[in-house]
Amino acid sequence: MNLKAKSGEKLPVGILGATGSVGQKFIQLLANHPWFEITALAASERSSGRAYKDVANWFMRTPIPEHIARMEIRQCHPDLPCKIVFSGLDASVAGEIETDFARAGYVVLSNARNHRMDSDVPLLIPEVNSAHLELVHRQNFGKGMIVTNPNCSVIGFVMALKPLADQFGIEAAHVVTLQALSGAGYPGVASLDILDNVIPFISGEEGKIESEPLKILGEYGNGAVRNADFKLSAHCNRVAVIDGHLECVSVTLKKKTTTDAIKSAWRHFSGEPQQFALPLAPLQPIHYFEETNFPQPKLHRDLDKGMAVSIGRLRPCTIFDYKFVLLSHNTIRGAAGGAILNAELMLKKGIIKSDSLKD
Amino acid sequence: MNLKAKSGEKLPVGILGATGSVGQKFIQLLANHPWFEITALAASERSSGRAYKDVANWFMRTPIPEHIARMEIRQCHPDLPCKIVFSGLDASVAGEIETDFARAGYVVLSNARNHRMDSDVPLLIPEVNSAHLELVHRQNFGKGMIVTNPNCSVIGFVMALKPLADQFGIEAAHVVTLQALSGAGYPGVASLDILDNVIPFISGEEGKIESEPLKILGEYGNGAVRNADFKLSAHCNRVAVIDGHLECVSVTLKKKTTTDAIKSAWRHFSGEPQQFALPLAPLQPIHYFEETNFPQPKLHRDLDKGMAVSIGRLRPCTIFDYKFVLLSHNTIRGAAGGAILNAELMLKKGIIKSDSLKD
Amino acid sequence: MNLKAKSGEKLPVGILGATGSVGQKFIQLLANHPWFEITALAASERSSGRAYKDVANWFMRTPIPEHIARMEIRQCHPDLPCKIVFSGLDASVAGEIETDFARAGYVVLSNARNHRMDSDVPLLIPEVNSAHLELVHRQNFGKGMIVTNPNCSVIGFVMALKPLADQFGIEAAHVVTLQALSGAGYPGVASLDILDNVIPFISGEEGKIESEPLKILGEYGNGAVRNADFKLSAHCNRVAVIDGHLECVSVTLKKKTTTDAIKSAWRHFSGEPQQFALPLAPLQPIHYFEETNFPQPKLHRDLDKGMAVSIGRLRPCTIFDYKFVLLSHNTIRGAAGGAILNAELMLKKGIIKSDSLKD
Amino acid sequence: MNLKAKSGEKLPVGILGATGSVGQKFIQLLANHPWFEITALAASERSSGRAYKDVANWFMRTPIPEHIARMEIRQCHPDLPCKIVFSGLDASVAGEIETDFARAGYVVLSNARNHRMDSDVPLLIPEVNSAHLELVHRQNFGKGMIVTNPNCSVIGFVMALKPLADQFGIEAAHVVTLQALSGAGYPGVASLDILDNVIPFISGEEGKIESEPLKILGEYGNGAVRNADFKLSAHCNRVAVIDGHLECVSVTLKKKTTTDAIKSAWRHFSGEPQQFALPLAPLQPIHYFEETNFPQPKLHRDLDKGMAVSIGRLRPCTIFDYKFVLLSHNTIRGAAGGAILNAELMLKKGIIKSDSLKD
Repeated sequence: MNLKAKSGEKLPVGILGATGSVGQKFIQLLANHPWFEITALAASERSSGRAYKDVANWFMRTPIPEHIARMEIRQCHPDLPCKIVFSGLDASVAGEIETDFARAGYVVLSNARNHRMDSDVPLLIPEVNSAHLELVHRQNFGKGMIVTNPNCSVIGFVMALKPLADQFGIEAAHVVTLQALSGAGYPGVASLDILDNVIPFISGEEGKIESEPLKILGEYGNGAVRNADFKLSAHCNRVAVIDGHLECVSVTLKKKTTTDAIKSAWRHFSGEPQQFALPLAPLQPIHYFEETNFPQPKLHRDLDKGMAVSIGRLRPCTIFDYKFVLLSHNTIRGAAGGAILNAELMLKKGIIKSDSLKD
Repeated sequence: MNLKAKSGEKLPVGILGATGSVGQKFIQLLANHPWFEITALAASERSSGRAYKDVANWFMRTPIPEHIARMEIRQCHPDLPCKIVFSGLDASVAGEIETDFARAGYVVLSNARNHRMDSDVPLLIPEVNSAHLELVHRQNFGKGMIVTNPNCSVIGFVMALKPLADQFGIEAAHVVTLQALSGAGYPGVASLDILDNVIPFISGEEGKIESEPLKILGEYGNGAVRNADFKLSAHCNRVAVIDGHLECVSVTLKKKTTTDAIKSAWRHFSGEPQQFALPLAPLQPIHYFEETNFPQPKLHRDLDKGMAVSIGRLRPCTIFDYKFVLLSHNTIRGAAGGAILNAELMLKKGIIKSDSLKD
Repeated sequence: MNLKAKSGEKLPVGILGATGSVGQKFIQLLANHPWFEITALAASERSSGRAYKDVANWFMRTPIPEHIARMEIRQCHPDLPCKIVFSGLDASVAGEIETDFARAGYVVLSNARNHRMDSDVPLLIPEVNSAHLELVHRQNFGKGMIVTNPNCSVIGFVMALKPLADQFGIEAAHVVTLQALSGAGYPGVASLDILDNVIPFISGEEGKIESEPLKILGEYGNGAVRNADFKLSAHCNRVAVIDGHLECVSVTLKKKTTTDAIKSAWRHFSGEPQQFALPLAPLQPIHYFEETNFPQPKLHRDLDKGMAVSIGRLRPCTIFDYKFVLLSHNTIRGAAGGAILNAELMLKKGIIKSDSLKD
Repeated sequence: MNLKAKSGEKLPVGILGATGSVGQKFIQLLANHPWFEITALAASERSSGRAYKDVANWFMRTPIPEHIARMEIRQCHPDLPCKIVFSGLDASVAGEIETDFARAGYVVLSNARNHRMDSDVPLLIPEVNSAHLELVHRQNFGKGMIVTNPNCSVIGFVMALKPLADQFGIEAAHVVTLQALSGAGYPGVASLDILDNVIPFISGEEGKIESEPLKILGEYGNGAVRNADFKLSAHCNRVAVIDGHLECVSVTLKKKTTTDAIKSAWRHFSGEPQQFALPLAPLQPIHYFEETNFPQPKLHRDLDKGMAVSIGRLRPCTIFDYKFVLLSHNTIRGAAGGAILNAELMLKKGIIKSDSLKD
């Protein structure tokens, strides 16, 4: 492999939807990335031509990186000075734009829902289903390709289910989410709607949680993913938390087991990101807490760079076999960080070829 | 019946644990009650002898009623100038004190958990199991008796389940709660623990939710309650909401039915409090909302004097038969208001005899 | 006087900007008003022709009144079936529309800032400057007229200053506000911007606080108001409170006095609304609290129907003479309730003639 | 100088009040300190003898450092294995215990208020009044000494005033604070008291803000500090913010100047911590923001390791000369971080002699 990243030169990348909340998180996480360097910011037509700092309502807790602040925003046309783009585009426009970029030879790492369920598009969590990356060879985009990461509520959920699926088999999983405000983007939820309140509904979210995991946990073979087959039921709530989706999960397993065996499965869970020591990989993907009242969004969302999943309160359930609580950072592991980890894995595995990106 | 309440004279009542959060709510709700009049406030020894306003850290949104503010606090000894006491005592002391009062001939309406599961103590929701009031005849307290109301998370849950149990039968019910801060009393949850956070654990709460409904929905016969027999599983969370417990419920029914039939069962649900038009009875015990994102704590907790249960989002479940959201006011319907409604019913049915209270 | 209100018939009124947050508050407060009856709802063109409940994102804590829910929304043209309109219009459109209505003979009670500082428009707080109502005779609108109420931060501030101005004279007043979210309308402040945060700036607000009080406290004579003459300085913050603006005030008085004399001035403060017992008048316009940590938004904003001003912590200041804290409900006293009280006073004083409204 | 810190060996330090909120922050900030190493944790008698992790209700967002978690807690007796102690003790006990430690030869860096105003105790902000450190030579504790840092609201305030005092002179300063919850310690403010609320009072706080700055900005000469002489007035509020005290300040200066000159004074402000490049020193002590709505607690409290002061909104005042907003992190710059910076400076200047700490 001949990674520019190794030779000290970083790979140029672009951000689509750079002014939005996911776009800002991409910028923040890529600011000091060892392999990637932001060379293009693209957003809607009305922002193009202006300096990033004059357009973006920046609300990250670290300042806008200097060179990004002054960078001119471009339109989302496939003429950007890079060959990899991270897309934080809104679903209302992402579908077409991302396809345009792939057709033009760009590697598109998308956070939007539009292409997630396409049969030739990997819906990727590197620790869980890196084999699905093979799907990109079925895409007809030449050098270009589209790889997606799952919905922000799905990533932590599936990471918790994966070791259980592998070791015990899953028959049914029921999840009630308590989701953070940042999941709704910016401006997103009005303060008058959520202070001293809970909103027991998030548009479209339950459908995603009831479908995406089946694809992610599906088996790859003969050029296709065969969806996993178990029952999934979700109920989604929005709560007054800034970052970090908490989920109350109940599962029925195929093989009977013990809480100790399950905790052990979680604690030993690991995948290619850990094996390759990817820059954004959590050292330990799943942290199990024995404290009776953990995990909590404020205390544990930033664990391991915000890329780890925290689990606690595993206990028998009178209806299902077991129940537990999990937490993952929705805009890092569940969005921008997840997409960057996808790109890191693709680069390491040679699916993104740094040579071909040179020209 | 010869109710003083009817003749213009009100029945004297006392509040045990008058300075605590449930005690304050009792005072607020009884301030203008047509049948009852507070004549005694009792609290811990260190408060006794002092004026109520000098001891209570009053945090209700209406001012302390004038005559209550000046009333001297007494100890929790059964020598109070009344024959009915509402107990907002903490469980650490409620058991013994309530027994002492019952033995001394007082009618004790308790909000504490201590006697709830005693086989001869009604665990009462007037719309649901007024027949259980017969249990008091098995108590050996002479004129005295103890009647309890359920845990604050249980009342709304059971009111939602009751019409389903009656018309379709229940096989299993799974509930994830998002509970308000006032449920933890005062000072209760530290602000540093809950701002921008969720606590996925409430000590002892899940056990109560998994046991109390079976007694409440049990059948009375031959001087005893035979518990209902279905599977119950609960997961409890504390969220940054002041009042109003929200619950995400999934149920499996014995008879197959439709969402319309279920909504109809809820909307037509009614009981003795409505029949007798008790002062604190909600006009309609269950309100079903068709809006996709209702009910919400801030918007609906005060519905019908805070005594109604709000339900929404009824839809099929891939694992259970149906899922829905419910909301009830935890310190009104779920605590002080519930206990007062119990007393109103007992008075109306002659279980509390106003004559005998005279002497 | 021949008020329909007296004869059992209510006066028909319209709401301009009926779907916005001030519009909703008008509807809520007028729902059971003894003198007024809503007969027209007007909003922007895109809402017109549709039922109110289908357009308004209603977020009041009481349900939409039944007949309002079904009422068809009209455009803001002066052809509404009423002669009095309450305007909750946004300042971007209020100026012209309100003038159009006044020209067409409507009495316009406006909550917008556009006409507040017009020399012939009363900027009215009924307890403070009812004499300014004479200004309407200088308006050239025939039967029509425009009367405005002050900015939501100004009303409580000026009510606190008025008795001091009358009895001791004011030389300078410095105010730092902690303003509620509802002051920004709906959707207003994004939850991500205010949870765990303060925003130390509110666009245009400081200018209003530094100018409006001088007009309100000015003297009426010879058909004009001569502005009061003292120094005013304001600093405005937005805080995570739903309703109720809190203000930290420091004042220098012309005559030396005592804290007792000031408290007495506040407690005895009263005006025409109290004298006429207007429906929405607070029984006591200013409540002074002796508690060291009062007033507080959550506890006192609803005092006296949300129409009273709460004050506390009066103490000497090392730089000014005195400092204190005040609180008033920004959407009731500070907006819709204030405008309704204005209308009540105008009706009672015959400035709105119910006869002329008949035709 | 012969600092162990330079030779790779760290200086052993102890934490008094190690389980409290300031104690936890000390532990967090010292976890990877290049010069200091925690060798002793002391707390109240009932905690002593137990492992830190079993006693402390740890609520920092980073985990307890491993070796601290297992460390046994000791009593606050001057027999700890170190010669420097950081005190996060509550004022109710700090006075005597700190004196005991100083008498026993310990260098005490105190965050408590007890000794702050003692005439021979430096009330130190290293950028502001390092000359005051000479006061320790007047203390009669042998090798021992006590150095204090100011109240959490005072540090940022004085850092903003210092360059103004030096260049223009101060005649009067008026401050209204909006203080974070963490300033009240843990459990501190009850969630029911602050959600949807502001508390316009903090016990004892205004007195500290009106006195401590005069000592800190006083001149050292002839073995004593002569207090600065200008008028100070404070009003304190508690708001629903986790960390970061925001302050609205108005000042009158002795010399007339311009906003540009003031901004320049702030931006160029620097002191010994910057000159010596102390480990916890902010690179730039004061950041001035030109954005109209900055600084904000959530966005700027962590600036420069939480050790910088953020200022914005400088503008003329109609009563004073200028007004502005400042923000500083109350538990880092305003407490534990401030005390550590004090120790760093004392070590660098040889007031703490690492040699003498050896034995």
